[in-house]
This record gives sequence, structure tokens and C-alpha cells, in this order.
Amino acid sequence: MPASPIRKLVPYAEQAKLKGISVYHLNIGQPDIETPAMILDAVRNAEFKVLEYSHSAGNESYRRKLVTYYEKVGIHLDHNQIIITTGGSEAIQFGFLACLDPGDEVIIPEPFYANYNGFAVAAGVIVKPITSSIDTGFALPNLSEFEKLITPRTKAIVICNPNNPTGYLYSREEMETLKEIVLRHNLYLFSDEAYREFCYGGRHISAMELEGTEENVILMDTISKRYSACGGRIGAFITRNKTVLATALKFAQARLSPPSYAQILGEAAIDLPDNYFDETRAEYLSRRDVLVKRLNAMEGVFCPNPGGAFYAIARLPIDDADQFCQWLLESFSYKAHTVMLAPATGFYGSPGLGKNEVRLAYVLNKTDLNNAMDCLEEALKQYPGRTL
Amino acid sequence: MPASPIRKLVPYAEQAKLKGISVYHLNIGQPDIETPAMILDAVRNAEFKVLEYSHSAGNESYRRKLVTYYEKVGIHLDHNQIIITTGGSEAIQFGFLACLDPGDEVIIPEPFYANYNGFAVAAGVIVKPITSSIDTGFALPNLSEFEKLITPRTKAIVICNPNNPTGYLYSREEMETLKEIVLRHNLYLFSDEAYREFCYGGRHISAMELEGTEENVILMDTISKRYSACGGRIGAFITRNKTVLATALKFAQARLSPPSYAQILGEAAIDLPDNYFDETRAEYLSRRDVLVKRLNAMEGVFCPNPGGAFYAIARLPIDDADQFCQWLLESFSYKAHTVMLAPATGFYGSPGLGKNEVRLAYVLNKTDLNNAMDCLEEALKQYPGRTL
Repeated sequence: MPASPIRKLVPYAEQAKLKGISVYHLNIGQPDIETPAMILDAVRNAEFKVLEYSHSAGNESYRRKLVTYYEKVGIHLDHNQIIITTGGSEAIQFGFLACLDPGDEVIIPEPFYANYNGFAVAAGVIVKPITSSIDTGFALPNLSEFEKLITPRTKAIVICNPNNPTGYLYSREEMETLKEIVLRHNLYLFSDEAYREFCYGGRHISAMELEGTEENVILMDTISKRYSACGGRIGAFITRNKTVLATALKFAQARLSPPSYAQILGEAAIDLPDNYFDETRAEYLSRRDVLVKRLNAMEGVFCPNPGGAFYAIARLPIDDADQFCQWLLESFSYKAHTVMLAPATGFYGSPGLGKNEVRLAYVLNKTDLNNAMDCLEEALKQYPGRTL
Repeated sequence: MPASPIRKLVPYAEQAKLKGISVYHLNIGQPDIETPAMILDAVRNAEFKVLEYSHSAGNESYRRKLVTYYEKVGIHLDHNQIIITTGGSEAIQFGFLACLDPGDEVIIPEPFYANYNGFAVAAGVIVKPITSSIDTGFALPNLSEFEKLITPRTKAIVICNPNNPTGYLYSREEMETLKEIVLRHNLYLFSDEAYREFCYGGRHISAMELEGTEENVILMDTISKRYSACGGRIGAFITRNKTVLATALKFAQARLSPPSYAQILGEAAIDLPDNYFDETRAEYLSRRDVLVKRLNAMEGVFCPNPGGAFYAIARLPIDDADQFCQWLLESFSYKAHTVMLAPATGFYGSPGLGKNEVRLAYVLNKTDLNNAMDCLEEALKQYPGRTL
């Protein structure tokens, strides 16, 4: 079981803080955007005497309400096609457990959300990475590259759209390519759409919109980023494939129920005004612009412009991203501050890739983000392993 | 993946309710005891702007406070030996994933909590049941019986104490036997102590108290039953074995964090007055007495007197417990009521066992419990598959 690349540097950050150094956390997708007061109040005002188990698939009232949310984003569902999960994490776990046997293979464009690895290990599933390159802004590899990796044990393709860690937003053409592959080879398409609301420019194309893939597509969703409600641990496992749903429900029953409190919060969130996301999206967009501009202005740094989510991957003029990120916490400070980044190595399945790349989550306000970029710019001048 | 024996009859119960029949739920361990208002208020009054991820191991303040709880029940811990989990369910999952490889074997006295099976399937682990008999009140099988089952692939013994589904409370001698076996054969001892507070008569002996087993024992715990807080989904994975802790923490990091809301609730619960459990325990004890007396007074029924938890297994004069429990919901009512029970077959790993046994959870007040017993008594007269 590999350690989380996002969390493994935490002890170094704790040490830095003990030394009185403030740490700008660009390492983890914990948004600073306030959770809407209305949905926090819904939990506060909920009246019950016993904090009971919910239905294993989640409260029916919540699932029915979620149908209206998905309707608004162009996904037509029945509430019975939704299983509420403990975060998006559990939705991914259910997908691996319900659709795959130990020894089966899944293809995942790399760099990818590192915890897919953890869930694959837990399910005994083998991850076959397919490399997307920073030079193309992390576009989907083409069909023939996928087909080179497909074996009789290949059972699924996993995408995250818009992507964590790259911020890449898949185009209509790319989604159609994925449809062609999964139909031709009878594969599942696991689509993690945690960042659906955060697209800048292009329209988000959900895998659930791909006609003719009803038996193939599993949507893994979460309210964590959408409403800045990461601690709630509420997500959803969604599919129109009845057999997969029935199997996933057995895993859901084994763990009894998803958390009750945050289901109340999630249900209340459906009543947020339609323009709720406009403000949040505008904020993330302006942060992205600051981040990408600042990064590309640094000598030897390249950062493609991400189309969604709140992550970017940058290539830095450094020898080793893991060492650099640790050095930032252990040995560096600038005006009593430092910055915490996620080494990109942990997001690649192929050994040796990403050694001069880092992931940055733009989850801080623009002032802090600019200050963090000042830190990084200075650090790149001082770092002993710089390659410029 | 097997369906949950506790939840698989739910659709029949829903149908019964649509027909206007009230269902006494003795099928699931959802206590009717009110969650203490003080701890619900702690959540209501918590002040924060962002519902953030917590530490993957849970909030440090909560873990430190839990140390004082365990101290009171005679378990001496450091907060770093505790990982907060999403319910006891996740603690069990972490145990299977962190300690066992696919193909490894665990020995579990049967009947056992059915979801152990689900978590074993998910981890690729093989369950070897060792039969405890209703005729001895479900006492621990003796040492030689265990040794007959031990192979080079045996890695752990799983116990639940006091037991779900039997209510059996292991004696000091039985715990010492388990210690002898795990030390002699270098096995893990997974001890699920969800019902620690609910012991009637004998003192609860935690596996954590067994000297010399620091490397062997993993405690799986939960606040669900203790504080009637099942929907919170907060438990704990506890061990003094550093390697196991480090591995479990990686699985904890992969799923990011346990639910934030119920951690607040769990932390507040440590401040409940020391006599909080006295009242709850007295209530369960008086219910147990009603249940066991009523059952044993029915013709052809035998129910051993359970020493803890809030479950009992009864032997009924019926042909098939699964059919009987379904029939109760589909075809029977008495004064517009029926009763929902869990067929014991789902709690046995050995095929064919438990066919004339059911599990009853005494989670209703004594009036309802008596009414439910009236239903059952009448049902046993009417059931076409009765064997008397």
C-alpha cells in the first residue's frame, strides 16, 4: 500500500509550524471557500432525537432531490440509480469492488488522483497507466495508445473530468473517443466528476451523457468540492447498470449507511440558488489566472492553462520534486513563510515520471496565492538542486 | 458478495408498511434510546465557516480525549495508537486490509456478525468459521477446536465481545484461551467491542487487557451503540502494533478523513457523566429479561440468556428461518402489526446451520417488545412451516 503523496509530507509541515513558519497549503484540495451558511444551518436546525442509521443507499428524500440537481446539469436519472456514499472515495471503492475481480486491470490516464492507487491495491486490481503529457496540456492520449494497453484482463477505464491533478477538461471529441473504446472492448468507464461545477471556458461533458453507454458508465461524485464540504464525507455512486447497482448496494449494506449529518447538508444544498456556483467559479477562475501567470513568468517554469477543477501541474527547474517539496518545509522560508506543494511523482503510475513536476491546488485567496508564488519564486533561486 | 442478512428483507418490510401493517423492528441493532441531547447540542453549537477535512487519523483533540475514555474502562493508550474510522465498519475493513493478504484465513466463532463476511470478500480473505452452539449458550469453542482449523495461511482470529449476534460475553478464562492461541500461533486477534458498555452481570474483559499481546491485538470500536449514534459513522481502529498502525494509516489517508460532524459529537460524549451508562444498561437489562422470558415461555422455543449487547438468538419450531422471516412480513399480521427478525442462517459461515434460529435485537421499549412477542407467539401458531 503506497503512502498518499498529498499527505505524506504532513509531518514536515507540522515541524515547520513548530519553528514558527507559516505554511501556504497548495498541497491539498481543501478549499478555503466558506461552506454556504444555509446548508450549515440546515444541519444545525435539524430536529431528531436519535442519530439513526440511514438507508444503506442514503436517505430517499436526498436521493430524490439529487435527481433534480442532476437534471439541471443535463443528467437524467432515477433516484434508484443513486447510492449515497461516504465521500467520493467510497464511490470509487464501490466501483472497484463491484465491477472488478482481483487481478483485473484498469487503464487510467496519468498523472492521476493518487488515491486511485490505494483503492486499486485494496481491491487487488492492477492499474495500467497511460501517459498524458504536460506538453499537450495533459490531453487524452489517442485511441490507438489505449488499444495498445488493452488485454483480456482489462475491465475499465478511469477518468477524472475535469481532472485532478492536471485541471484538464476533456472535450466532446475526447469523450466520444472514450465511448468508442469502452463500447468496442466492453469496458466500464468510471467517471470521477468531483469538479463538474468548476470549468472555465468549455462546457463539461459528463460521461452519463454518452448515449449507448448505459451499461458501461459509472459516475463517481462528491459534494466535497462543490459546496466546500469536504469534511461531510458525502458522495454518490451512480449508474444505470442494474447488475452493478445491485452489487454495489451489497457493499453499501456491509458498511450499513453513509454519515447522517452530512446527508442533511447535501440535501439542503440542492436548494441553493442557481447562481451559487457563478461566484465560486469566478473566484477560482481569477485565482487560476493569477497562478498560471505567476508560474509561467518564473524562469524555467512551465504551467499549461487548466480548463477546470482547481489544480495545475507545473514543470519546475528542479532535480527531484519530492526532495524539493520536503526542502521547502524543512530548510526554506521567505518572510517567515513557506509553501507546501504535492510532488507530481505520486500522481504517475510509471516510475520516473513527474520528477520535475508539482501539483498546486489554488485553494487560497489571491493575496495568499501571490505570497505563495513569491515564496516559490524565491525558493527556486535558493534550492540546491535547481537545474538552471 | 453476499447480501446483508439484516437488510435483505427490507423490501418486504416496505411492502408490509404500504399495506398498513406496522412492523416491530427487532431485525437491526438500531437502538431507540435517545442520543444524549448534550452531544447533539455540541454539533448544533459548533462554530466553523468551512466544513473541512480532518486529519486522516481523526481530530487530535478527539483522539486525546478518547484516551481518557479508554483509561476509565481499564485500557491504557496513547492517542497515536488510535485512528478514527468511519464507523466500526471501517475499523474492521482497515484490520483486514492492513494485516491480511488475499488468500489469508481468519477464524471466526459462528454465528458471527454477518458483515465480517462482506469485508472479508472485499479484502480477498477467507473466513473459517468455528461453530459455537446454542446449547452451550454460544460459549467459545475450546482450544483444540481452534487448533484443528489453523493452517499456514491462518493470520487472525476475529471476536466480537460481547457478541453480536449471540449476546455472549466472553469470560476471563475464554479471553486467556484466545491469548494462548494467538501467541502460540503468532496470529492477530481482532476484537470488536462495540457493545462494551452493555454487560449484564459479568465484567467485560477487553482484548487490550491481555498482557503480552501488544503486537497481536487490534481493537475495533464504534460510538454507534454506546451513545445511540449509529448515523454518525464514527469508530476507531486501535492497536499498539506500530507496523500495523502505519499501514492502516495509509488506508486512512487514501479515503482522506472520517466524517467531521460526528467527531464533534464523539468528542463531546467523553464528557457525559460517569453514570450515563447506568440508566441505559438498566433499560437494556430489563428488556433482555422480558425478551428471554417471553421467548422461553413459547412452546418449542429456546433462547439462552445473553450476558451482554442487545441481541439474542432463539431456536424456533420452524422449518426455515429465511422463509419464516419473509412470511412474517409478506403473509402475517396480528392486530395490524408484524415483527421483523433476522434469520440466523446469515450469521453462520457453515452452510445449513441456523436454519431454525433467528436473531432478535431488543432495541424497543418493553411495551413494544411485549407486543412484538405477542406477534411472534401468534405467528408460530399460524406459520405453515411450523414443526410442532
